[in-house]
Amino acid sequence: MDLLSIDSLSDAQIRGILDRGEQWFERNRSGARTVDRLAGRIVFNLFYENSTRTAMSFATATHRLGASAISLSVEHSSVKKGETLEDTAATLNAMRPDLLVIRHRENGAPARVAEIMDAPVINAGDGTNEHPTQALLDAATIRHRLGRIEGLKVAICGDIKHSRVARSNAKLLPRLGAEIRLAGPPDLMPADLPQLSVDEAIAGADVVMMLRVQRERLEQELGDGPGEYLSRYGLTEERLDGAAKGAVVMHPGPMNRGVEIDSRIADDPERSLIRMQVEMGVAVRMACLEMIAGES
Amino acid sequence: MDLLSIDSLSDAQIRGILDRGEQWFERNRSGARTVDRLAGRIVFNLFYENSTRTAMSFATATHRLGASAISLSVEHSSVKKGETLEDTAATLNAMRPDLLVIRHRENGAPARVAEIMDAPVINAGDGTNEHPTQALLDAATIRHRLGRIEGLKVAICGDIKHSRVARSNAKLLPRLGAEIRLAGPPDLMPADLPQLSVDEAIAGADVVMMLRVQRERLEQELGDGPGEYLSRYGLTEERLDGAAKGAVVMHPGPMNRGVEIDSRIADDPERSLIRMQVEMGVAVRMACLEMIAGES
Amino acid sequence: MDLLSIDSLSDAQIRGILDRGEQWFERNRSGARTVDRLAGRIVFNLFYENSTRTAMSFATATHRLGASAISLSVEHSSVKKGETLEDTAATLNAMRPDLLVIRHRENGAPARVAEIMDAPVINAGDGTNEHPTQALLDAATIRHRLGRIEGLKVAICGDIKHSRVARSNAKLLPRLGAEIRLAGPPDLMPADLPQLSVDEAIAGADVVMMLRVQRERLEQELGDGPGEYLSRYGLTEERLDGAAKGAVVMHPGPMNRGVEIDSRIADDPERSLIRMQVEMGVAVRMACLEMIAGES
Repeated sequence: MDLLSIDSLSDAQIRGILDRGEQWFERNRSGARTVDRLAGRIVFNLFYENSTRTAMSFATATHRLGASAISLSVEHSSVKKGETLEDTAATLNAMRPDLLVIRHRENGAPARVAEIMDAPVINAGDGTNEHPTQALLDAATIRHRLGRIEGLKVAICGDIKHSRVARSNAKLLPRLGAEIRLAGPPDLMPADLPQLSVDEAIAGADVVMMLRVQRERLEQELGDGPGEYLSRYGLTEERLDGAAKGAVVMHPGPMNRGVEIDSRIADDPERSLIRMQVEMGVAVRMACLEMIAGES
Repeated sequence: MDLLSIDSLSDAQIRGILDRGEQWFERNRSGARTVDRLAGRIVFNLFYENSTRTAMSFATATHRLGASAISLSVEHSSVKKGETLEDTAATLNAMRPDLLVIRHRENGAPARVAEIMDAPVINAGDGTNEHPTQALLDAATIRHRLGRIEGLKVAICGDIKHSRVARSNAKLLPRLGAEIRLAGPPDLMPADLPQLSVDEAIAGADVVMMLRVQRERLEQELGDGPGEYLSRYGLTEERLDGAAKGAVVMHPGPMNRGVEIDSRIADDPERSLIRMQVEMGVAVRMACLEMIAGES
Repeated sequence: MDLLSIDSLSDAQIRGILDRGEQWFERNRSGARTVDRLAGRIVFNLFYENSTRTAMSFATATHRLGASAISLSVEHSSVKKGETLEDTAATLNAMRPDLLVIRHRENGAPARVAEIMDAPVINAGDGTNEHPTQALLDAATIRHRLGRIEGLKVAICGDIKHSRVARSNAKLLPRLGAEIRLAGPPDLMPADLPQLSVDEAIAGADVVMMLRVQRERLEQELGDGPGEYLSRYGLTEERLDGAAKGAVVMHPGPMNRGVEIDSRIADDPERSLIRMQVEMGVAVRMACLEMIAGES
């Protein structure tokens, strides 16, 4: 099986990943060493976009399971030589890895690659389309802290139009029983969504997930300075006051402090789950790798 | 021993690599896990030129044999700081790797490095000089499909002058009993070779190996567009009709589709061995690593 | 514990690292394979500056101890996305590596990271501040060749002002009983140090350690050509004649041959310890990794 989209997963598989991710989370916290669960497997990590956290997170998950990670970043690729993505995929396929993790600027690129690969493919983020392991780790983090997802109100705020994180979460969380509200600057909202203000989205929310705004978009498309964005669309104390009692705050990172989120909120261990998201990221990716590479 | 050139190998060693490569090929196909054959060995991969397939192929072969691969690409090197290649080699040597794989823009660079290293050195391609593991995988692929190499007619077509692949194959295949014909645009042929047209080279050939033409050369030196190159020097259905019955097609990749080769030929599983070359590449490199690093 | 500076280490720890480094040095020379001493541990290598020798040396040391190395170079980092170093550190910390090795352009960056990380941090060089493992390997190399450090006269010559190698050695070697003399071009000397000429520093020295001069500084700040620098401040045969009988020569690399050091001296196996420094580097870093990552 491939993990290209949240749509790739059955409800049972989603529950399986969240439960297993929780187990790995506890195990990793205990200072346990790597295991041999996927010993002797080879995982290709193919990143056509720079990434710290996702690339390191997948590599760490791979090593923790005892598999070998072989990484290729865009600088070393044949892309510049004019080879098509399909030819690169066919070439990598012929090397018979046990699994391929791919991040790509273009929507649908992982699906194109998966059509060619015999090995399973995990989408580590494609353009503005999907980032399914991010949504899975977000769900696991929410459940770990709040004990449930069903019945929660989740506000996702920021550059909704370009966010693969928002898109995957908007698919996953409702399947787990949450109510989703998407809000952001009018220019950064998809045309087919109801225009909700950030304040309206946050009102009564149990979870407030802020998205990164590209600095280029900030200046060129919105004409805003960082402080202006914060006061109009970012997460301030005033705005967060409107959320439900005990509301938690999330961000997929990397954060623009003082732009989409006030630094004090980001660093508040009571309310911010931002570090826990990263920690759960390794655990949930271990669950995904195990489920997908362990089946063959 | 070093593997710097096809000349580095005795006939017995060549046969040994082809036979062992065939065994690894079958084993890798069976979905088998990595083995411990080179467990505890450290292989340095030093790439001074970008590469997808060769770098990934060597890394995969290294991991499949249970060794550790430590890779250095040119961007991270001291080259920019003005250190000589000899000093870099002496530095790496002092770290006592079990084997060094090197690709370099300059002809003879791997030989210069090998003079300094105590560990064996494998040339993964140097300038326009040699690429011996490519020739070995090509030979293994031909033998796997056609059952023999002896007595076959092999046409190698394209930018012969700058091709290290052509050069290594022109040394290896005749030693295995094949007849070689080299052809390409007059400006891309070495002066000391007979001028053969691509059609003449392909006539009656059992194997047609097309070489990549650099897009820069295409426009600046040849003054051709892609379609013009294809019709004059590339592998078209018409041209391939002149080959022997059951002729197979090869390309070291990455391919310029519609330039040196018609896409339909490249993708025809009956005639094209292009994917099998990549698959055999991992297997043959495993055989080379095993023979060379396993001896010490 | 962290290894941020020579000041991080007790005298007993320094002796422990030198002794254990000596053992690893002999073991590595014997052609022994990797060991399982740190099997199952994950080491993050975070390099914000290009490096051949230090990055490869730490990776080799990590693999030799059986741990997994996951490397991130600046090109793949979120730095460009505007994330703070502290946020990157918190993110990496949440992935729960067993150890973090960091090189950074800014003085104090490893200390800032160490405040955030739960895992121990090793400073692999920060700006013009410190490079403690380099000083440790230098001390181990001197002791290996000369049998002792106590009572030796060590001249360190070159760009003292910007050298983290000089700074760490100036802390370490006197603690081990050596006498240190620092000398270089007046513009490249810290203001608070006595102005000593290179000839004066070398006179009677048992060890002469030459530092790399940045080519940019050479031309812009000193207004010297390479040969001019050599004759005024570099290590020539004439200058070395003033040193003690049996004096040895060191350089942290990469060398500018014909600038800070005459090539014949650099390559003289009787006097030059430059290759041994690299070899001891892997061994001493194994001792550091073992002491620091093995304790948890």
